[in-house]
Amino acid sequence: MPMPDLEALAGRYLHVRAQTQRLAEPLSAEDACVQSMPDASPAKWHLAHTTWFFETFVLAVHETAYEAFDPDFRMLFNSYYQQLGQRHPRERRGMLTRPALQQVQAYRDAVDERMLALLETMARSKRKGPEACELISTLVQLGLQHEQQHQELLLTDVKHLLSCHPLWPAYAPPEDRAGAAHQALSGPGWLPLARGQHEIGHAGPDFAFDNEMPRHAVLLQGAEIADRPVSNAEFLEFVRSGGYEQPQWWLAEGWDWCLAQQLAHPWYWRQAAQGGEDGWQEFSLRGAVPLDAAGPVAHLSYYEADAYARWVGARLPTEAEWEVAMAPHWAQERADEQEVGDGLLHPWAMGDGGLQLGQVWEWTQSSYAAYPGFRAAAGAVGEYNGKFMVNQYVLRGGSCLTPAGHARASYRNFFPTTARWQMTGLRLARDVG
Amino acid sequence: MPMPDLEALAGRYLHVRAQTQRLAEPLSAEDACVQSMPDASPAKWHLAHTTWFFETFVLAVHETAYEAFDPDFRMLFNSYYQQLGQRHPRERRGMLTRPALQQVQAYRDAVDERMLALLETMARSKRKGPEACELISTLVQLGLQHEQQHQELLLTDVKHLLSCHPLWPAYAPPEDRAGAAHQALSGPGWLPLARGQHEIGHAGPDFAFDNEMPRHAVLLQGAEIADRPVSNAEFLEFVRSGGYEQPQWWLAEGWDWCLAQQLAHPWYWRQAAQGGEDGWQEFSLRGAVPLDAAGPVAHLSYYEADAYARWVGARLPTEAEWEVAMAPHWAQERADEQEVGDGLLHPWAMGDGGLQLGQVWEWTQSSYAAYPGFRAAAGAVGEYNGKFMVNQYVLRGGSCLTPAGHARASYRNFFPTTARWQMTGLRLARDVG
Amino acid sequence: MPMPDLEALAGRYLHVRAQTQRLAEPLSAEDACVQSMPDASPAKWHLAHTTWFFETFVLAVHETAYEAFDPDFRMLFNSYYQQLGQRHPRERRGMLTRPALQQVQAYRDAVDERMLALLETMARSKRKGPEACELISTLVQLGLQHEQQHQELLLTDVKHLLSCHPLWPAYAPPEDRAGAAHQALSGPGWLPLARGQHEIGHAGPDFAFDNEMPRHAVLLQGAEIADRPVSNAEFLEFVRSGGYEQPQWWLAEGWDWCLAQQLAHPWYWRQAAQGGEDGWQEFSLRGAVPLDAAGPVAHLSYYEADAYARWVGARLPTEAEWEVAMAPHWAQERADEQEVGDGLLHPWAMGDGGLQLGQVWEWTQSSYAAYPGFRAAAGAVGEYNGKFMVNQYVLRGGSCLTPAGHARASYRNFFPTTARWQMTGLRLARDVG
Amino acid sequence: MPMPDLEALAGRYLHVRAQTQRLAEPLSAEDACVQSMPDASPAKWHLAHTTWFFETFVLAVHETAYEAFDPDFRMLFNSYYQQLGQRHPRERRGMLTRPALQQVQAYRDAVDERMLALLETMARSKRKGPEACELISTLVQLGLQHEQQHQELLLTDVKHLLSCHPLWPAYAPPEDRAGAAHQALSGPGWLPLARGQHEIGHAGPDFAFDNEMPRHAVLLQGAEIADRPVSNAEFLEFVRSGGYEQPQWWLAEGWDWCLAQQLAHPWYWRQAAQGGEDGWQEFSLRGAVPLDAAGPVAHLSYYEADAYARWVGARLPTEAEWEVAMAPHWAQERADEQEVGDGLLHPWAMGDGGLQLGQVWEWTQSSYAAYPGFRAAAGAVGEYNGKFMVNQYVLRGGSCLTPAGHARASYRNFFPTTARWQMTGLRLARDVG
Repeated sequence: MPMPDLEALAGRYLHVRAQTQRLAEPLSAEDACVQSMPDASPAKWHLAHTTWFFETFVLAVHETAYEAFDPDFRMLFNSYYQQLGQRHPRERRGMLTRPALQQVQAYRDAVDERMLALLETMARSKRKGPEACELISTLVQLGLQHEQQHQELLLTDVKHLLSCHPLWPAYAPPEDRAGAAHQALSGPGWLPLARGQHEIGHAGPDFAFDNEMPRHAVLLQGAEIADRPVSNAEFLEFVRSGGYEQPQWWLAEGWDWCLAQQLAHPWYWRQAAQGGEDGWQEFSLRGAVPLDAAGPVAHLSYYEADAYARWVGARLPTEAEWEVAMAPHWAQERADEQEVGDGLLHPWAMGDGGLQLGQVWEWTQSSYAAYPGFRAAAGAVGEYNGKFMVNQYVLRGGSCLTPAGHARASYRNFFPTTARWQMTGLRLARDVG
Repeated sequence: MPMPDLEALAGRYLHVRAQTQRLAEPLSAEDACVQSMPDASPAKWHLAHTTWFFETFVLAVHETAYEAFDPDFRMLFNSYYQQLGQRHPRERRGMLTRPALQQVQAYRDAVDERMLALLETMARSKRKGPEACELISTLVQLGLQHEQQHQELLLTDVKHLLSCHPLWPAYAPPEDRAGAAHQALSGPGWLPLARGQHEIGHAGPDFAFDNEMPRHAVLLQGAEIADRPVSNAEFLEFVRSGGYEQPQWWLAEGWDWCLAQQLAHPWYWRQAAQGGEDGWQEFSLRGAVPLDAAGPVAHLSYYEADAYARWVGARLPTEAEWEVAMAPHWAQERADEQEVGDGLLHPWAMGDGGLQLGQVWEWTQSSYAAYPGFRAAAGAVGEYNGKFMVNQYVLRGGSCLTPAGHARASYRNFFPTTARWQMTGLRLARDVG
Repeated sequence: MPMPDLEALAGRYLHVRAQTQRLAEPLSAEDACVQSMPDASPAKWHLAHTTWFFETFVLAVHETAYEAFDPDFRMLFNSYYQQLGQRHPRERRGMLTRPALQQVQAYRDAVDERMLALLETMARSKRKGPEACELISTLVQLGLQHEQQHQELLLTDVKHLLSCHPLWPAYAPPEDRAGAAHQALSGPGWLPLARGQHEIGHAGPDFAFDNEMPRHAVLLQGAEIADRPVSNAEFLEFVRSGGYEQPQWWLAEGWDWCLAQQLAHPWYWRQAAQGGEDGWQEFSLRGAVPLDAAGPVAHLSYYEADAYARWVGARLPTEAEWEVAMAPHWAQERADEQEVGDGLLHPWAMGDGGLQLGQVWEWTQSSYAAYPGFRAAAGAVGEYNGKFMVNQYVLRGGSCLTPAGHARASYRNFFPTTARWQMTGLRLARDVG
Repeated sequence: MPMPDLEALAGRYLHVRAQTQRLAEPLSAEDACVQSMPDASPAKWHLAHTTWFFETFVLAVHETAYEAFDPDFRMLFNSYYQQLGQRHPRERRGMLTRPALQQVQAYRDAVDERMLALLETMARSKRKGPEACELISTLVQLGLQHEQQHQELLLTDVKHLLSCHPLWPAYAPPEDRAGAAHQALSGPGWLPLARGQHEIGHAGPDFAFDNEMPRHAVLLQGAEIADRPVSNAEFLEFVRSGGYEQPQWWLAEGWDWCLAQQLAHPWYWRQAAQGGEDGWQEFSLRGAVPLDAAGPVAHLSYYEADAYARWVGARLPTEAEWEVAMAPHWAQERADEQEVGDGLLHPWAMGDGGLQLGQVWEWTQSSYAAYPGFRAAAGAVGEYNGKFMVNQYVLRGGSCLTPAGHARASYRNFFPTTARWQMTGLRLARDVG
């Protein structure tokens, strides 16, 4: 077993942790504390919980006689690990006005210091063998991937919070690029999906979550998949044609929900005197922007994505179809990813022609389930993914809010069918022959 | 195209319709009218809706100048066909004290008369070709299969209703067989599931629902599946060992639900001074009976079935695994099926050894989804199955309340994860190698 | 102490019990079993519970070795008497498909037989003194008054049930009187209410409920009260002028409720192609009838009654004002009361001029509270009235569904502010000087 | 008409506004922003809304060409004045992370400056007559009384928020006085309430709310009232004797609520390993303190107060009884009131003997209703009190959190029967003779 490169890991640790700080910077203590709905967590909680992860799974286990920064934090910032004892209920995270944001920053600093010291010690130590280093390296990598997931959640949760304010205030200053009104696109191109046996899932030495494994064979029946996600202009046609009033496009459960919620358009859309198409605006992290005809439609529930696909005579792809089609193009398409903090914080306009991905998570028709032979890790870490494998659907591809380098072609995101506050869109597929 | 045998079909029509009547016979007008929860329909509604199906999809379309038995029934007894206009809301079916049960019986008689006349006319007519006969034959077959589904629902809905009465009254008189306390079984045998490509789904001339088609290839990874469902005695071990208080066995969503509902044992179980194991009793259509150690456990939600499987170190099978394993044995095992009305109305004791199936519907880990290439029928009939393909899980095998001849090895039943009032149990599977 | 006239009481017993039967006669077993909302009880339950009252408070106590008709009925038909042990929850009374309506009739017959035998025995017996007779006489009178209250509830509950049917079926055949469209009335006359000390409450030998006592002095400040209730035509003006969209007329709590329920007119009103004023119809026990301009408006919540009064520049009277004003006229106005069963089952048209009362219960602004010195009876009977004295408002005057001879000028009916399914209207009052 | 003393008023303005600031001082931006339940408002909202009151009702009306500090605040900080246009929904006040606390402080400063300038201008101006000064003086006084009401609400709302934190953090540092465990008291003394006519309500030149007027005559029947509120030790007896499990003491609605909420003791009580009586602790603004036997019981709902009174064989007083008994003693008992900010922030121990009042608001059995002849003011200010006169009960006496000089003997506080987060206790009354 080769010794993992703990120095490189320490560098990566510093980078990811700093990136989180940067995303939290525009937030006041108040912005960082309030919980706008049970599914969304306060930014302060994200800052503390990601730190708790390193403290709980690395420091508390691998430091000798580790003394907790604050023993109460073990309970306050445990998300859902039943095996780690009591936890503060998810829907009441917004009640935690204490510790203050500043104290959480101190918590982050203290844990960072200890983590870097631990990595350095281990790198230099002769006593600890490669097994121990490997174990810690694995946990630190998991912790960093975990923190990156929370970076995206922090942004989508803040977006939701600000959208609950009647004035739609902004997280970041406006940008010219966001305000541009682009031309509508011509129809997508279609990539063939060959009938027969393919392989999906992660294999190889790089990091992947347990739910992406084992790599295994799947059978495809032959189909086509679009080379880009559905655009705002295309989805607006569905809205205009009465798609939200016609049950025939909807799954029965989706239709009941659509009626109960009185849905009439995607989450974060509103029709104002001034806007893009017919005055349509969209709420973004930079405030209200005109709806961009060429941007991928976002913030759809599974039901809306599925209804749109039926209306247009297509369907959602399965996750296997998605991965088989996109995996060959992944590396190239995502080569020039920029860090979220440098970006538009909003899906940008697509061009005509050519493969496009990575702006919005794309709903697939696949229910989130274990791959054949999946086995959760032992201990509390094993609760990471496996226990959520029911009544959720898989999304693929990453979004404009996903940290650079975080997603993969085999990456499986998942949400319930009603989730709309995430950066969720769709790509069409259709049967052939 | 050969002429379908409309006379045989008329005979089958008479048989199925009479069987429904027989199941409704023990019910008073009051028993038949009350709705005990939004998911359960009154028996009277089942009697009327199954008749409405023939009137709407056959008579109204294929009789010249058909005059409705009562024009209001089109709205009152439409279940969920959006394309057929207004319908009375599902959760308010119990408000329909009018028409009275007797009027619904008259409705059944009138439609039966017209249906038989139509079948006879068509059989004798020279004018109408085999296409028209084929079309009607298909719709009548669908209507009869539909009615059989409602026969089982009628019984499970009545069971639920009676269980809401504080005295647990019976639908049918007690039977000695139901009261017997059998010996616990030794562990199940395990059938091998060969790694590789198999075929599932329906093909061939016999009737099957659209969701069972097309027949298609699947890949299995190699596993084992039990030769019988889990028994009451086995599940009781889970209860006794604290399974309902230990989150580690449960899907996260299931655990939250279990806590919120304060579950402690299967639906319809209660612990009384007198009963089977430790005084455990079970509510049956024949009133309270001692819990039978050798009977298959029933009335489980998906969450409970899944938690039990994890606790015992196994898992739920996929529907493909189930079908591949059971299809070869189906015909033999179900050869001597008796009509529900002649039976115990309760799952009976399993013996030790040998394949056992057909007493309880068995949860699989497969989310209910379209088979590759699935296409719903055109028109309102197309709403039959397809629009329910989300957030439900597939059950296989038929139950002691399923009409004789109705189920198949390829038959896909489906319910949401929280459904407990159906006759739902589980069969274990496990990975090998 | 004079011997009470037990023979007259037996006669009254027969009359009241027969009247209940008469009201239940048009109901099928289904109509009598279904519960349309938690506040409304099935007719069968009313039939059984009123019988339970005599069995529990008279027979079970005063018959030696009384054997219950069915021991389970003690629990099934106990309404809210905590001191009598377990009871079936109010909101689940509709689950009691057993006993069947016919069995409840048998229960009524059996208890009637025993009650009459007991009264006869006591009347003839020399042994039992006037105290025992007086006690039984008091309880029987209470039981009969109780049964009369349930007669009105039975009708309002059936009305609610039938209104939940999409076809608005009728309880009784249509009547010409109900369909008449009368001329709108000129404004009401106003009766003076003299400033100073008055007496209200019941005194004297006749029956009254405990909540009407003790008779006591009250101070009035001087005001006027209308000589008739508000009419449909008058209330329609409020509807037309946008009263349901203007918060300024409403109590804050009422406005929130009005918005949440999306109220736009009184319960049981609907606007159809054909009807009375502008096509307005009202649901009645005889089916849909045109809204009668001269009829008193009915089925108002307290909030609507109060909002109307503010809109018109008046206010609701206090219950003391109401009683002081109406008591002198009561005997004459109600002299020719007819039995409910002989009547229109709907408030009839008022004439112009002259005191009018007794068609609808009239909301007062008085919260239901104990009179000074009120003391509840000992034992379970003491739960009859006292424990409901919070968050309810007093209604006065009786309605067209109140049994003849049941109401009094001192009679205090009471309901929560949101109740609309009762026969509730209003009479205006206004300050002077 | 004499000229009101506007200089004295300016001084009072400064004092009250500074007192609010002082109460908000211990709060972080996070503590001041979060809303812990729909009935409780964030402290920041209280700070802004009280300022909004002066801006809206004084500056915007009486300054020529007043320019709003921020035009959006008119909507954001309107509480419930329908006549002033749109308002942010009460239950979503916690979503207002913007404006930040600091901006709200700037808002307060700016409005204070303008208010003082206005008062000074008017005091010096020759042009404006005494009528204009009187009008402004009245509105400023109302605004200050309003702000004082919000001072108490700010503290009770903060207390509720902190109680939602699992660690029960403190608003203010501990105090020795709060931790003392005093001896239980001997029974209360009883003050006689003479039968006959009395007067209640406010009259005279000093400020009072409209709901305290007009002063009017009432009739009392003769009774006694305790000379002090019920103590913690006394209420603990009720808890220990099973009062929360015995329906006979409870109003029917209260009992249902008690069961549904699973109540077992007063809000903010908990039983810990260490505490006062049997380990009972109470949450206070200074954190957890041992339950003090001699302190008045607080944070009771109306239902609990009423149930306790019945259990002990007494009853709640009417508000007329309360005022008649307490008015003569008010001035003396409240002479040495200290400002809330100087106090214990918790009800302190009562001594044995002698009249005690002012530590907890005391529930009366009187439903909150208009006094005879009550008339709300014209315009939006008229919404202050009148529209809440339904389904609430009157509390009297002031509490340890009421600002010095704010309460009066005629002061009518009011809350729904389920309110427990206010400083609410009870005083017993009983009938005599």
